[in-house]
Amino acid sequence: MQHRPRVIVVGGGFGGLAAVHTLRSTAVDVLLVDRVNHHTFQPLLYQVATAGLAAPSIAAPLRHILRMQRNATVILGEVRCIDIKGRTIDIDGVSHPYDYLVVATGSTHAYFGHEAWARYAPGLKTLEDALRIRARILTAFERAEATDDPIEQAEWLTFLIVGAGATGVELAGTLAEISRHTLKREFRRIDPAAARVLLVEAGAHVLPAFPPSLSAKARHQLERLGVLVRTGHPVTDVDERGVSIGGQRIAARTVLWAAGVAASPLGATLGVPVDRAGRVPVTACLNLAGHPEIFVVGDLAVPRDVAAVPAIAPAAKQMGRHAARAIMALHAGRELAPFRYRARGSLATIGRMAAVADFGRIRLSGLLAWWVWLTAHVYFLIGFRNRLVVLIDWAEAYWSYRRGARIIIAAGESPKR
Amino acid sequence: MQHRPRVIVVGGGFGGLAAVHTLRSTAVDVLLVDRVNHHTFQPLLYQVATAGLAAPSIAAPLRHILRMQRNATVILGEVRCIDIKGRTIDIDGVSHPYDYLVVATGSTHAYFGHEAWARYAPGLKTLEDALRIRARILTAFERAEATDDPIEQAEWLTFLIVGAGATGVELAGTLAEISRHTLKREFRRIDPAAARVLLVEAGAHVLPAFPPSLSAKARHQLERLGVLVRTGHPVTDVDERGVSIGGQRIAARTVLWAAGVAASPLGATLGVPVDRAGRVPVTACLNLAGHPEIFVVGDLAVPRDVAAVPAIAPAAKQMGRHAARAIMALHAGRELAPFRYRARGSLATIGRMAAVADFGRIRLSGLLAWWVWLTAHVYFLIGFRNRLVVLIDWAEAYWSYRRGARIIIAAGESPKR
Repeated sequence: MQHRPRVIVVGGGFGGLAAVHTLRSTAVDVLLVDRVNHHTFQPLLYQVATAGLAAPSIAAPLRHILRMQRNATVILGEVRCIDIKGRTIDIDGVSHPYDYLVVATGSTHAYFGHEAWARYAPGLKTLEDALRIRARILTAFERAEATDDPIEQAEWLTFLIVGAGATGVELAGTLAEISRHTLKREFRRIDPAAARVLLVEAGAHVLPAFPPSLSAKARHQLERLGVLVRTGHPVTDVDERGVSIGGQRIAARTVLWAAGVAASPLGATLGVPVDRAGRVPVTACLNLAGHPEIFVVGDLAVPRDVAAVPAIAPAAKQMGRHAARAIMALHAGRELAPFRYRARGSLATIGRMAAVADFGRIRLSGLLAWWVWLTAHVYFLIGFRNRLVVLIDWAEAYWSYRRGARIIIAAGESPKR
Repeated sequence: MQHRPRVIVVGGGFGGLAAVHTLRSTAVDVLLVDRVNHHTFQPLLYQVATAGLAAPSIAAPLRHILRMQRNATVILGEVRCIDIKGRTIDIDGVSHPYDYLVVATGSTHAYFGHEAWARYAPGLKTLEDALRIRARILTAFERAEATDDPIEQAEWLTFLIVGAGATGVELAGTLAEISRHTLKREFRRIDPAAARVLLVEAGAHVLPAFPPSLSAKARHQLERLGVLVRTGHPVTDVDERGVSIGGQRIAARTVLWAAGVAASPLGATLGVPVDRAGRVPVTACLNLAGHPEIFVVGDLAVPRDVAAVPAIAPAAKQMGRHAARAIMALHAGRELAPFRYRARGSLATIGRMAAVADFGRIRLSGLLAWWVWLTAHVYFLIGFRNRLVVLIDWAEAYWSYRRGARIIIAAGESPKR
């Protein structure tokens, strides 16, 4: 009788989950490991960070998603190390053997050697990050209302976002909307509409991954929403009370980091030299040259001889599915096909009724792009309950500018008492 | 021209918010202080703790609730001290003068001199408590799945709730439902239905505030749901791995505390001797005998010459409204009316389609009481969005046993990485 192969997948994001799903009707045993118990719909993290959605609306428990897939086991735990020669993986001190391994641990924030900035300028990668940012934003308005000092008030009412990729643009646009509309009539000593939202970018354009015409439109839409956009100067210092940029000091009590990503540190433990961002070079078939049984997918992987793959959810899903099929091919002794990324288009939302969409020849901006964005994001959310609740929250936000999750909870920080 | 009186209300719970609301069309300036930015619908905290509802579904920002009340200002902050003679209150170092003061800071957990138990057996009073308990419960099942040791597994699958008042009964009933239904098919190495849920109570009856016939029915309903109920023995020790009770040791990795409440520590700073639970004795008009401008309402107050007032939301609301009217009477030089508690009935839910209701002559239990409970709780929730989303979540839970908020977020604990 043939040995039933054991596949371990590390990471329950878009890439890892796609790999597990693709193995559902095959004669393998799959073990999925993650250090959180839920799959996070990362494209909507900024909505949690800006109090538009509750955290559970964009997350689903991994074991609930996989409850019907009998060949999949889910373990909540931290991968301590991978023994490549012995083909085992250590999860919180317990050793698990594998025949095939899929590493899909994604990326984290990068501060380009200035790790000290992390405490002043949090990044947005996990639900805990989102709750921490939500608490910071809401607390800033509270502090401005509580103080009598006009200088301090102005500092609390200045919000600065570093990095004008998709996340930075989303955060800036939504913050402008919150200050101008959502908080109307709620304060007695400050005018929230007087808040300044600055978006700073070291490169020449906002949304650099988009064609220049759409970048320009995005910038115009941001400015119409009230965001102050500054491009062409990198941030040179960040502290508790603001940033330095282009030789100038900007006082801001709330600084958010959307400037850089670094690959998950697990990539560096796979025995191959990683690139400057910590990503793992893999073959065109997505596995390691010296260890064909190890696959790397998603943001962590740099496939050789493949046109650049963007760090977005659809790409991670395609890579996850490819790795799963390659494992079945390897096991059957068939030849592996190279991965080919199929671009489905790029979307970025800017704010209320403002977005850009790039489908190659078709390029949209404004209201139409926003509807496409909205439909796509509700469609791809996991779980009927989530879709329905997100639609209700968005409908309410659309008609009344209200945001349903404006509560400050000290996630990740010890409570005061 | 007459001086426009300043009223400071400390605490945005049911009592404080009722006082602020009642002053809405009067010629006073109201300042509401709270250390969190939201009003919490405490009767549904156990639903957040058991992953049935997202935290924002049972909370609303105080300043959003009061946005239309032009004479009300909201400040997020901690009351450091009250200068009774100078009639000022210190909020985070800033002094605020008052003509009338309403203290409505409620209660917290009491461990009867065993404060060390708090870290092993968390109580449920705030949203942060609820998220912490949610993380503990969900993590316990994860740990049971991850370990190979059958003894450890059994310990992780034992949940013990101390105290069989309304909160203890709600937690026990819901935990039994989660283990038997919600988690079905989701684990591969453990059977969640094998989990033991113990409810221990020092007194003779569960729900001691209810008439004996309903207490007995509640116990029967709990046992039918699979809860092991033990009455008549107090807990004598609590540590990380279990409790001691009646000379016996019970190993349980998850212990929840629903046994005792102590009044908020602010009560002890009002210059009058407090009772054993830290509550403040007030006149029949709810103010201090020596300082008629200071009112105390809600769980923190013990009105003299008034039949015992239960520590429930409707009582706090009535006291808040009474204090506001008394302030207007005092200011106009009219005589104060004594407070009279109007009992509207008591409700406690036990689990799926199980509850008890006591309306004096009318006593209900089972399905009918559950419908009354459900209707009342949706009706009293603040905010249309919350009512709609809670209904959706409950409808889904009813039909499919699913719970929409099963995500582990380390609220109040520092994240691992």
